[in-house]
Amino acid sequence: MEHVSLPPLSRVAICGGTHGNEMSGVYLVREMQKQKVDQAGSVSITTVLSNPRAVDACRRYTDTDLNRCFTKGLLSAPITDSTPYELKRAQELNSQLGPKGSKEAVDLLCDVHNTTANMGLCLIFYSIDWITLHIYKYIQSKMTSTPVRVIQLDIPISEAYSLESVGKHGFAIEVGPQPNGVLRADIFNMVKEAVDLTIEWLQGFNSGSTFEGGEVEAYNLVKSVDYPRDPTSNEITAAIHPQLQDNDFKLLRPGDPMFQSFSGEMVEYEGEELYPFFVNECAYYEKKIAFHLAKKITLTFPPISVKKD
Amino acid sequence: MEHVSLPPLSRVAICGGTHGNEMSGVYLVREMQKQKVDQAGSVSITTVLSNPRAVDACRRYTDTDLNRCFTKGLLSAPITDSTPYELKRAQELNSQLGPKGSKEAVDLLCDVHNTTANMGLCLIFYSIDWITLHIYKYIQSKMTSTPVRVIQLDIPISEAYSLESVGKHGFAIEVGPQPNGVLRADIFNMVKEAVDLTIEWLQGFNSGSTFEGGEVEAYNLVKSVDYPRDPTSNEITAAIHPQLQDNDFKLLRPGDPMFQSFSGEMVEYEGEELYPFFVNECAYYEKKIAFHLAKKITLTFPPISVKKD
Repeated sequence: MEHVSLPPLSRVAICGGTHGNEMSGVYLVREMQKQKVDQAGSVSITTVLSNPRAVDACRRYTDTDLNRCFTKGLLSAPITDSTPYELKRAQELNSQLGPKGSKEAVDLLCDVHNTTANMGLCLIFYSIDWITLHIYKYIQSKMTSTPVRVIQLDIPISEAYSLESVGKHGFAIEVGPQPNGVLRADIFNMVKEAVDLTIEWLQGFNSGSTFEGGEVEAYNLVKSVDYPRDPTSNEITAAIHPQLQDNDFKLLRPGDPMFQSFSGEMVEYEGEELYPFFVNECAYYEKKIAFHLAKKITLTFPPISVKKD
Repeated sequence: MEHVSLPPLSRVAICGGTHGNEMSGVYLVREMQKQKVDQAGSVSITTVLSNPRAVDACRRYTDTDLNRCFTKGLLSAPITDSTPYELKRAQELNSQLGPKGSKEAVDLLCDVHNTTANMGLCLIFYSIDWITLHIYKYIQSKMTSTPVRVIQLDIPISEAYSLESVGKHGFAIEVGPQPNGVLRADIFNMVKEAVDLTIEWLQGFNSGSTFEGGEVEAYNLVKSVDYPRDPTSNEITAAIHPQLQDNDFKLLRPGDPMFQSFSGEMVEYEGEELYPFFVNECAYYEKKIAFHLAKKITLTFPPISVKKD
């Protein structure tokens, strides 16, 4: 692919606590604020605790899931007395870090999340973005403590609902397994390393380095699978099968064990061969998702460097 | 030790959801209720969802920690408009399954809990109880899927604050690691096996079997250790060190890594050699406990059988 020149990426936002019980981002942002990290060479850094009310309560959210509030529609919805706290907070964050889709928006928004699923470290992003792919490639080449993967969601940016969509470029860093409300040092260290590498890459890019093109494997969301449920009570009647539990990104084949009912029966997977992820994520019980399924794709990206004035 | 005869144990209560986000007990009790399990040979079984309001909210508790409400004092406190929900519920449970200390109390109360700590399966009980030790020995001899240990707290029964103290005999089954709000099939299977083995032992005891005496190793609580905290904000400034994380019941020696501060420094353990447990338990952040420390003791128990009429 042909060489691409892009404008400098001088303003980055590092966000944590978008979900108030995902502790890596909460403590990373607090530590950066304590250390007064606001500049790294050519890169100015804004650190944001996205949902302080939920952080105080150590809950995912207080009224509604903040990380579903960043669609164009919701960001321009009028505020009334009955507007949920998180929607008001989304509009505040959009003013501070966006506005989404404008030239005032931060160049890169990186939002730190945790999952209870055994996913290692993943970058999650919407439509294909060369900056994100280059940063991903860089992080993957430097980190050895955990598998590093990339997940791509085919959602148009206007319908993109999560905080990172407010930046000109953006991705979520999703790291697990870590229980909600718990801080593990190993996971904290991974997140910190990924954020430090991101900032390091931005400095290299701004300083005129050329980054070679290449290709990466990515996981492309196909669909979600719910738990078996009792049709009247709607309560789940089975758990993720022990053979699927903790096996995120391991190919699921027809006939493989998928659920184990509370009375002991096994439920097999039926359907095409796909890769499960977010397997048994705590917050997805209420969203009626036992796990997501992805196909593996190859993404090709061009060599890039900064556009000279 | 000399042979001991004890009255039959004909009434057992199996409780879950005392903490509303510890899912193994919630789903075990619901499944037993669905299957209408209320009798197993000579044993009548009462299944109780202890804190239904917290279960609905998928939180540990709504007003106050239910499992700290079962002291003699709190159980006889007058109820007013400002009485926390959980204290009212504790008094209801005491009426249903106790009253604590009376001859009307259930013969055995078994309360199912989860922890985010890597503790395997533990039986936790107050002052030394031969029935509990025999059941522990039986479970340990039969279960191969996980380590089975016993933890003993030196608290007089009148000051004992947890639900199992309401029964004539009682223990908590504590199983982990499992995140709050998540149900893992492997952990569910362990809990179910331990409860089934408990009921099996009771049937054997009631039918006149003699159980040999012997000795077991137990962990006896010595003290608790808090996280390092910022003296002004009171926020934690370090996480459990990766070398201590997940190493519950592995002897902690002076000089061993204990915490890792967010700026990267290691904090060493100082003090006598002891065994850590409940390492990085989610619910203990607010109780200012990073982990407990225990000494290992040997408990000897006599052969027992049921007292004939």
